[in-house]
Amino acid sequence: MKKIKVSVVGGSGYTGGEMIRLLLNHPNVEIQQITSESYNGKPLSRVHPNLRGVDLKFCSAQDLEPADLLFLCLPHGQSAQRLEEFTKLAAKLIDLSADFRLNNKDAYLKWYGHEHPKPEILTKFVYGIPELHREEMKQADYISSAGCNATAVILGLFPLIKAEAVDLDKPIITEAKVGSSEGGVKAGPDSHHPVRSRTVRSFQPTGHRHSAEMLQELKLDSINFSATAVELVRGILATSHVFLKDNLTEKDIWQIYRQAYKDEPFLRLVKESAGSYRYPEPKLLQGTNYCEVGFELDQDSRRLVVISAIDNLMKGAAGQAVQAFNLMFNLPEETSLTFRGLHPV
Amino acid sequence: MKKIKVSVVGGSGYTGGEMIRLLLNHPNVEIQQITSESYNGKPLSRVHPNLRGVDLKFCSAQDLEPADLLFLCLPHGQSAQRLEEFTKLAAKLIDLSADFRLNNKDAYLKWYGHEHPKPEILTKFVYGIPELHREEMKQADYISSAGCNATAVILGLFPLIKAEAVDLDKPIITEAKVGSSEGGVKAGPDSHHPVRSRTVRSFQPTGHRHSAEMLQELKLDSINFSATAVELVRGILATSHVFLKDNLTEKDIWQIYRQAYKDEPFLRLVKESAGSYRYPEPKLLQGTNYCEVGFELDQDSRRLVVISAIDNLMKGAAGQAVQAFNLMFNLPEETSLTFRGLHPV
Amino acid sequence: MKKIKVSVVGGSGYTGGEMIRLLLNHPNVEIQQITSESYNGKPLSRVHPNLRGVDLKFCSAQDLEPADLLFLCLPHGQSAQRLEEFTKLAAKLIDLSADFRLNNKDAYLKWYGHEHPKPEILTKFVYGIPELHREEMKQADYISSAGCNATAVILGLFPLIKAEAVDLDKPIITEAKVGSSEGGVKAGPDSHHPVRSRTVRSFQPTGHRHSAEMLQELKLDSINFSATAVELVRGILATSHVFLKDNLTEKDIWQIYRQAYKDEPFLRLVKESAGSYRYPEPKLLQGTNYCEVGFELDQDSRRLVVISAIDNLMKGAAGQAVQAFNLMFNLPEETSLTFRGLHPV
Amino acid sequence: MKKIKVSVVGGSGYTGGEMIRLLLNHPNVEIQQITSESYNGKPLSRVHPNLRGVDLKFCSAQDLEPADLLFLCLPHGQSAQRLEEFTKLAAKLIDLSADFRLNNKDAYLKWYGHEHPKPEILTKFVYGIPELHREEMKQADYISSAGCNATAVILGLFPLIKAEAVDLDKPIITEAKVGSSEGGVKAGPDSHHPVRSRTVRSFQPTGHRHSAEMLQELKLDSINFSATAVELVRGILATSHVFLKDNLTEKDIWQIYRQAYKDEPFLRLVKESAGSYRYPEPKLLQGTNYCEVGFELDQDSRRLVVISAIDNLMKGAAGQAVQAFNLMFNLPEETSLTFRGLHPV
Repeated sequence: MKKIKVSVVGGSGYTGGEMIRLLLNHPNVEIQQITSESYNGKPLSRVHPNLRGVDLKFCSAQDLEPADLLFLCLPHGQSAQRLEEFTKLAAKLIDLSADFRLNNKDAYLKWYGHEHPKPEILTKFVYGIPELHREEMKQADYISSAGCNATAVILGLFPLIKAEAVDLDKPIITEAKVGSSEGGVKAGPDSHHPVRSRTVRSFQPTGHRHSAEMLQELKLDSINFSATAVELVRGILATSHVFLKDNLTEKDIWQIYRQAYKDEPFLRLVKESAGSYRYPEPKLLQGTNYCEVGFELDQDSRRLVVISAIDNLMKGAAGQAVQAFNLMFNLPEETSLTFRGLHPV
Repeated sequence: MKKIKVSVVGGSGYTGGEMIRLLLNHPNVEIQQITSESYNGKPLSRVHPNLRGVDLKFCSAQDLEPADLLFLCLPHGQSAQRLEEFTKLAAKLIDLSADFRLNNKDAYLKWYGHEHPKPEILTKFVYGIPELHREEMKQADYISSAGCNATAVILGLFPLIKAEAVDLDKPIITEAKVGSSEGGVKAGPDSHHPVRSRTVRSFQPTGHRHSAEMLQELKLDSINFSATAVELVRGILATSHVFLKDNLTEKDIWQIYRQAYKDEPFLRLVKESAGSYRYPEPKLLQGTNYCEVGFELDQDSRRLVVISAIDNLMKGAAGQAVQAFNLMFNLPEETSLTFRGLHPV
Repeated sequence: MKKIKVSVVGGSGYTGGEMIRLLLNHPNVEIQQITSESYNGKPLSRVHPNLRGVDLKFCSAQDLEPADLLFLCLPHGQSAQRLEEFTKLAAKLIDLSADFRLNNKDAYLKWYGHEHPKPEILTKFVYGIPELHREEMKQADYISSAGCNATAVILGLFPLIKAEAVDLDKPIITEAKVGSSEGGVKAGPDSHHPVRSRTVRSFQPTGHRHSAEMLQELKLDSINFSATAVELVRGILATSHVFLKDNLTEKDIWQIYRQAYKDEPFLRLVKESAGSYRYPEPKLLQGTNYCEVGFELDQDSRRLVVISAIDNLMKGAAGQAVQAFNLMFNLPEETSLTFRGLHPV
Repeated sequence: MKKIKVSVVGGSGYTGGEMIRLLLNHPNVEIQQITSESYNGKPLSRVHPNLRGVDLKFCSAQDLEPADLLFLCLPHGQSAQRLEEFTKLAAKLIDLSADFRLNNKDAYLKWYGHEHPKPEILTKFVYGIPELHREEMKQADYISSAGCNATAVILGLFPLIKAEAVDLDKPIITEAKVGSSEGGVKAGPDSHHPVRSRTVRSFQPTGHRHSAEMLQELKLDSINFSATAVELVRGILATSHVFLKDNLTEKDIWQIYRQAYKDEPFLRLVKESAGSYRYPEPKLLQGTNYCEVGFELDQDSRRLVVISAIDNLMKGAAGQAVQAFNLMFNLPEETSLTFRGLHPV
């Protein structure tokens, strides 16, 4: 089979590095070019030490050649600004920034605080969670990645919302505990090790932009999201609290999740009665594309606590993009995504 | 001034060790005896390496002599069983276990799953948060410590509840992120370093016993508490979500907290507009008796996120017990509790 | 091609778990049985949460059937005691314990403090570092794994010693900084998270048993090894100090290492002039079978500092065993060992 | 007693912050001014969150008024350049930079790579380890702090060298394992949390400037020092390997150390036969001014492994400076330095 020619635009950040790692192992892909303006001409291993031994160098985006698909791993705002440049180079795009996640310009204005520069294009991008948009992805030319926190929360709650199990008169409250790689490759005072180490830091108690994606994809009027940084490099644990409609038992909940996720290759239900790992844990998912979901029901209050975990750079970014890519090109969905994760770690 | 003679019963655990550390620096205290059955006859530093150089040994509880006050740092259940033994030895007791925290035997049965062995004694213990029970403590003979998670949550929410700022028709949801010392000195599979390291583990999503204390002290009908273990040895960050009554602004909330805590020596409001530490962080409180409280209001939803942090072994255990002790004996409340904490750490 | 039938004896520990993970991905292997007496009948994921979704259960060693090869992952001492049992079941054995690492019973007595139960068998096992014993492994029936610390030190120093670059009149001093998984799956007071967390603990300043392997394989009369525990779950960094013979330059050293390792699939020289990762770092090697080696020469003193890093469960245990297995069965040496590692992590 | 008026020049870094913390608790000190050009006019808590509640602001060095003593906590190079400015303001100086640690301009040139700007002043500064220069300090006007790594190594080896116990024909090799606060307050790519977290990084295998201090104070011709970064914010563990002269037993070594350190308030010998903390550990010393020293002798090789631990910001910087200050002003040496450290932590 002829290989699919892809290029990675903006390959020196954490998402770019993870994307390259996955593409190097992808049997159907030929990596054509990887751009970085800061590291133009330098070997990949200069910034991605795990790619030592890979004989590839960064080039400038100015030297990009036509490809079958571009993975855009640029800082927020750039994909939208330079969209025409990229659509000329490739018929298909997967954008990993936040630029095309919302399909509504008003939502964009509300959560990002400024007008979207290309509002007319917003609806052309499929939102990047395959479990919600698999069929659309198979036909799509443009896919936008999903926010990492949004992915963790949405995949935890989607089956319940869809099954109308949640009492929407009561608030949904959800908190993500996140690792430091979520802040990206750029060093700053907040990520300085003596400051960031062992922190439990409520860095965005309200108003997080990923909330907009949760509202859009879960079709909710309101969701209450908070984000807290913890000691971890990779990983998100989202704890979501919803109140169930009256007549539902824990067994019903099991059935709802099993029904929704039984054929999903990357969704795993985790709810053990014994052992140290009874619920999902992000550290076990490092390097994998899995999203693990568990739950516990408080019979008295009808509160259901939903626990969902991912690796923010994998299922929350590059891994999910490869999953979408596989769907786009009609390849087996798990291609290049079979790493099981390590234990202990 | 004549020194107060105190003994520590059960001095080999983490709470006991912290208690000894504080008492050694207390100018009004003479430590008479420290018991441990497992380490009877051994120097303190055998289990408390930070007490090297202190010339004291553990003795058996069988050799306890009368004292002015006993600090009981025994495993759950023992203080209640052996209460008469202790009341004979000292007129005053401060119990650091969970045995006397609830003043109602039905609540005890519901949350602990068995009948309290001495229900008639429950009301004789003052619940151990000085900010709520200062005047009672000054008269008290018996004080029961407060649960560490309960302390963090109660001190975060108390001013709001008291001021009737919270819409109690909507659920209150609160989650504690906790360090490993909360599990105590005893090793086991869950605390094995390769397992516990860098965990973000939802170890008690519902049904945590400290909920009973929150209900009792905040006089609520319902509270939704979850506990998650994070990579930290000491410390708790509680994130509590409440919905405010309609007419309250952020300025009003400031005023409520200032009013409640302005004279409190160990309560600090933390809500900065700049810097890396804009909200409370438990790592900064290691070794201190402070509880720091911050908040952020989401205008749209009326959700107030309250962030409160403590050191679970200090304000959540031994430190708060010394604060209570100081009140009991009419000593300056901050005696032996002036450590400011370290930065960076 | 017909698959090779293998069983893992003692599959519930960390080495066993890593072995299973690798064998599951090995295209030429059929896993026949995995034994555990404690978890007999339980699914693998009960102790190896990263193997969720794998439909295999532990059985008792009593139910072992004949196989092409057994991987023995038992606690120290058991393989030697039960050797006949295993040789009856399979013509080929790879033992991951310390029982057959030394080929000399006197060395065994000296370092292990007791007589070897089967001294006559010691020379039948090939020592498990492929870079030193590749040709022997291709003919071997029995291979003994190498100690993890020994592997890191030996692979760092072997080229220098072989090239006679080291002044052996001066002492060789080497220290391993190691993660907590080196201590195995069993919990105890030293591995209790509040105790082990963030430790920098000199747990074996002298007398470490792995020294015996270094002496044997490097053919030295003396080596001065120390072991220090650091905050890490997986990984070893060995820092070795040797003094060079007079006439050698840094360029010569480069040449020696390049010559020795240029065709080695799992050895990488790391010595960068820029970036954050100028020398080997164990965290980058988690899950990989690489050993990375770097060095720095102090011209004045002729001291060469050699820095070598591995993942103790991979190149230091299961990974290296699979590498040896591949050689034994004439398979491509990298089969099932191509994971590049993660960054950031 | 009249308080001693001191000012801290350069108070926004980690050493400055620790200095302020200690001085605030010092009963004989009045803090007059604290300078920071970047934070001029801002409250201390803006950069030192543990000093919340302290009602002091930074001022510019231009506004410095005369004082009894200045603590200079400026970046390397500035104290020497601006020395006259400071000597005009105060008769006594304690400099915490590296500018005046070496008493020999040739050594300075060799290790720092450039001429010292004020070579004539070098001998006027007393080197800042009280255990070596106590009597000089009592008479001194100018004291220079000691490097943190140098302090850990020197205090570990000094008694042995002084007692002529070491075979100096054999090399002395010493490695410091250090926390991230050693790199100072300034963020950069190497201290970015995803990069620095869980590192075991050989950042200076040879050529570390602190070697010059070790040579000077131990009066050695040669010492082989390496520095490795580990996961820790505060703390240093130095592992030093020396070879003993033939006739010395472990008992002799005990005697040498006891003799040297028996009256030292901040030196503790740690060599336990049981428990998890058998040798010094830096995490236990966080916030304390202790240096703990332990050792283990390998009878065969005559190698003595000396393990010494400190908190780099305390005994390695601000704490040791306060100890020196106390000596300078004839105050009890432990004043403001009595914190015992925390456990668990």
